[in-house]
Amino acid sequence: MSDERLRQQIEFVLEIDRLKSVLRQSYLLGAKRRENSAEHCWHTAVMALVLAEHAREPVDALRAASMLLVHDIVEIDAGDTYCYDDDAAADKAERERAAADRLFGLLPADQVGELRKLWDEFEEGASREAKFARALDRLMPLLHNYHTQGRSWKEHAITAGQVLEHNAEVSGGSEVLWQFVQELVADAVEKGYLAE
Amino acid sequence: MSDERLRQQIEFVLEIDRLKSVLRQSYLLGAKRRENSAEHCWHTAVMALVLAEHAREPVDALRAASMLLVHDIVEIDAGDTYCYDDDAAADKAERERAAADRLFGLLPADQVGELRKLWDEFEEGASREAKFARALDRLMPLLHNYHTQGRSWKEHAITAGQVLEHNAEVSGGSEVLWQFVQELVADAVEKGYLAE
Repeated sequence: MSDERLRQQIEFVLEIDRLKSVLRQSYLLGAKRRENSAEHCWHTAVMALVLAEHAREPVDALRAASMLLVHDIVEIDAGDTYCYDDDAAADKAERERAAADRLFGLLPADQVGELRKLWDEFEEGASREAKFARALDRLMPLLHNYHTQGRSWKEHAITAGQVLEHNAEVSGGSEVLWQFVQELVADAVEKGYLAE
Repeated sequence: MSDERLRQQIEFVLEIDRLKSVLRQSYLLGAKRRENSAEHCWHTAVMALVLAEHAREPVDALRAASMLLVHDIVEIDAGDTYCYDDDAAADKAERERAAADRLFGLLPADQVGELRKLWDEFEEGASREAKFARALDRLMPLLHNYHTQGRSWKEHAITAGQVLEHNAEVSGGSEVLWQFVQELVADAVEKGYLAE
């Protein structure tokens, strides 16, 4: 092993510390502060271990978890794009691709592809694991919103229709979780957490 | 699938949100605030993907990563025990075992063992993956300390001898990383980040 190789790997490890300072729109369950993207990556990765049995097709839970570990690293450069912000969504893919080039590019040349492949697979959303991982990426903010009385939904005047449309992707990854999401949204409307 | 089963799994997912509020002694690289244990679990899990080639014996990187994902969940009940606090260390194992019983016990009965096994394996530190995962768990705080000019070391008046003794476990997981740790500590002393 060359020292240069380890140096590059450690540089990547240090650089991604910044993901802990990228704030999302979701509030922690205690509602004391907004969640950051590193916490979100961790939480969804653990969900992959716990909920894998509900995937629409059998999945390698560890592979889904590893995708979720890296799926938001691009936000270090591209920022967190709020899922209901259509303007920001317009150039999101381009911003995130440039970020992936730079960030994964910090790694030794032969290793760039390894992590980048996980990120690309998640973005494409075509494999079983990617579909399931994407479902969890949608589900968690919904749980945060529901269990903070819709705090972030209310701040942004989001409606049940928007939530269902945005989260329809859950259906691609898990029938059971999609059923659960629909019940949660209906209940959120009934409780006044979410506008009809 | 019974609704009760999913309810238990979601309860576990919601409960572990609290790990985001367990503060560690390490500061983020920007040194603006202390790191929390959820962030630490995420960071070390990504490290497992990036640094697996340096393990002393070949390891399943995804298994090591999944161990790191859950290794600190017990701190929700047991709190983060500062690694140089000998008094707190005395009953640490007992506190953490009780926490593991309660937290993993939230899951459906047949699933408790699955996640608990990962945690037990990490704690025992006997398998290749556990040894490697434990090395990363040691390495990251060292990087945080070094790159914040030894902030946490200084706050607790830690010496190089203590750091080397505590981090000797890195050697069990990776010869290369242990070499790196020794160089880092020597450099930290030279730069005045760490007392001799």
